[in-house]
Amino acid sequence: MTVDMQQLGRQAKAASKRLSQFDTAAKNKALHAIAGAIDANSAAILEANAADMEDGRAAGLTSALLDRLNLARRLDGVTSDARSVAELPDPVGEEFDAQTLPNGLKIRKRRTPIGVLGVIYESRPNVTVDVATLALKTGNAVILRGGSETLRSNLALIDTIQQALASVGFPKHAVQLIPDQDRRYVAELLKLSDYVDMIIPRGGNRLHTFCRENSTIPVITGGIGICHLYVDATADQDTAVTIVQNAKVQRPSVCNALDTLLVQESIAEAFIPRVIERLTQDGVEFHVDEQAGAVVDAADNVKPAGAGDWDIEWLDLILGIRVVPDFDAALAHINEHSTAHSDGILTSDPALMERFLNEVDSAAVYVNASTRFTDGGQLGLGAEIAVSTQKLHARGPMALEALTTYKWLIVGEGHTRP
Amino acid sequence: MTVDMQQLGRQAKAASKRLSQFDTAAKNKALHAIAGAIDANSAAILEANAADMEDGRAAGLTSALLDRLNLARRLDGVTSDARSVAELPDPVGEEFDAQTLPNGLKIRKRRTPIGVLGVIYESRPNVTVDVATLALKTGNAVILRGGSETLRSNLALIDTIQQALASVGFPKHAVQLIPDQDRRYVAELLKLSDYVDMIIPRGGNRLHTFCRENSTIPVITGGIGICHLYVDATADQDTAVTIVQNAKVQRPSVCNALDTLLVQESIAEAFIPRVIERLTQDGVEFHVDEQAGAVVDAADNVKPAGAGDWDIEWLDLILGIRVVPDFDAALAHINEHSTAHSDGILTSDPALMERFLNEVDSAAVYVNASTRFTDGGQLGLGAEIAVSTQKLHARGPMALEALTTYKWLIVGEGHTRP
Repeated sequence: MTVDMQQLGRQAKAASKRLSQFDTAAKNKALHAIAGAIDANSAAILEANAADMEDGRAAGLTSALLDRLNLARRLDGVTSDARSVAELPDPVGEEFDAQTLPNGLKIRKRRTPIGVLGVIYESRPNVTVDVATLALKTGNAVILRGGSETLRSNLALIDTIQQALASVGFPKHAVQLIPDQDRRYVAELLKLSDYVDMIIPRGGNRLHTFCRENSTIPVITGGIGICHLYVDATADQDTAVTIVQNAKVQRPSVCNALDTLLVQESIAEAFIPRVIERLTQDGVEFHVDEQAGAVVDAADNVKPAGAGDWDIEWLDLILGIRVVPDFDAALAHINEHSTAHSDGILTSDPALMERFLNEVDSAAVYVNASTRFTDGGQLGLGAEIAVSTQKLHARGPMALEALTTYKWLIVGEGHTRP
Repeated sequence: MTVDMQQLGRQAKAASKRLSQFDTAAKNKALHAIAGAIDANSAAILEANAADMEDGRAAGLTSALLDRLNLARRLDGVTSDARSVAELPDPVGEEFDAQTLPNGLKIRKRRTPIGVLGVIYESRPNVTVDVATLALKTGNAVILRGGSETLRSNLALIDTIQQALASVGFPKHAVQLIPDQDRRYVAELLKLSDYVDMIIPRGGNRLHTFCRENSTIPVITGGIGICHLYVDATADQDTAVTIVQNAKVQRPSVCNALDTLLVQESIAEAFIPRVIERLTQDGVEFHVDEQAGAVVDAADNVKPAGAGDWDIEWLDLILGIRVVPDFDAALAHINEHSTAHSDGILTSDPALMERFLNEVDSAAVYVNASTRFTDGGQLGLGAEIAVSTQKLHARGPMALEALTTYKWLIVGEGHTRP
């Protein structure tokens, strides 16, 4: 199968021009139509998904991967998420920074759709609907490239979405999927700068690097989190153990899970054994530096930290532990090893709270809380399309507003520049 | 001479970490120190500039280029601009979107410096100081790459700036210049993604394309304006002639100058001859389509529009004129040929004003005003580092706020995620 990526691009651009003229009510109607069509078409979608699952089992996918792939118990969640997006406020059309200049020129900015998004993601088919609905809500067209293990599920979902769009007078090319998994189409997508305005990779480090190095379109990189908590001597240790546990084990496979625990020297002997005792019950393995190793009992799940361990995003039940003499040493460690995703301090000293908030330059900087809150849903955005760890356009959790740009509206009465 | 670009990058990154900790008063003191040092060192700077000018004359540069290069009558303006930047409000540290979530978690966003900027520009040495001061005001380090014709002027300015920075305790590597004009260093700069956070090219289409295609760092493209005015039948024609004249001739060499005039058919015969009569006095040459040609007298400066003329940014005293049947045809022409920089309508019909503001997707959309206002200084920003025509991060004129990002500050009292 040969995919004409130029044609996908042209179709997306044409659809985006039409999309930008739909008002909020029309867009919400389209979202409800999509949810309804998925409900109505669930048998066909689940059949396609079952075929993907069967191939996945035959190919020996891990049970964790198979679980991500499985839509069987998840389709109701997918449609209710689509309906929730309809309930969110629409940022498009919002006006801000309005002023009348001394010369009488009236200026303001108005939020508008970005145009066409390219989103590259892996094996969760529910992401197909998430991304499509967030893009549509903000008036953007989208070209999707999902994981190869879920191609049939995605084709069934896209077919359903496109039928729903057509049924309410929306351009069906507003949501397109690259129907072939050949990697060369990813490379071609990244060069479609005449048609595509923004690339969002959702996946591992390698995908982000590939996009950054090969794209002529702006790329939102992120989603890689080597996350730290520093426990200062003044921290309430009961609370600290609970936060550390939550940050590490509540969902270890995600980017905002804790990777490295830094503990101030003076409390190392009291605090680190408590952490190890509690988190051992959750099946955590610890990679400890020499000083931490000196204050804990030998155990199978306690290993000396290897070279490079501070630069690994574990995505697993593994926790690095390092003892530092003081706040400045903790800061130096974070500056060197953090991916600037989510880092926190646990302390009861207000001066240290302030210094940490000021001096740590991460997308999310925490005081006395678990790093697991770096998530659009948790931070009041109502949704999330990605977590940016780069500094342009949007940083941290991104939702609807991050899928918009703005234009300047300038209204005069015959104004000319002197 | 071999330039170690990795070292420049490392130095810039280290300087940016220190810079981010200076408060507004300290940064303003540094800006005043720079202005004072340029004043004190003006003899050496002007001597270097005179040598650049001499080489430029020997190399046969046009008088327009020599004028851009010349600092002799411009140095007072340069230092007064630096002092003006000190007077502007500092966006860094500003907090916004503060809220306490239902779970008690206190969240807010705080504006922070981006980090390290890479700015590539051409022959105006005054840009060296402009960019350095805007970067410093926002706590950013910068690596500059100026035009080859002004290397000595730039080296003298950078030396002065670095001395001034050192005199007030600022890291001198906050402002660095690539001291060699070999183009391979531009290519290397574009790959320094470990150290540089944002690339701003200031130059022609070729430079922007080169940056977009070769950078692994986010690039702000822009500055290319094929600008349109559409004159509707209801426009006040006296006002319209004056606006068209201003947009075309007030400064024809810049990106927001008018390129193509679209005139509604029903007023073509009355209006176009008036435009030609008035702008002929300014030395303008007209490239007219067949319908426009039919309503004007033959003259040396009136030529038939050639194929491709609607896709040229003239940057000169040349104006394309095309007759269109109606608003929709004007819109279609703009959608096809605009670079989405600055486009306007001249009309007295409120419904058409609204449609134009809604349906034209350019960085600046105008009603009844000259396109020449697309400029940070003119639109109330107090300064300008570039005009973005891409849609991420910033669109239209960019000044201080566009040189910042933000981080999320999240303060809990032992919060964990359920």
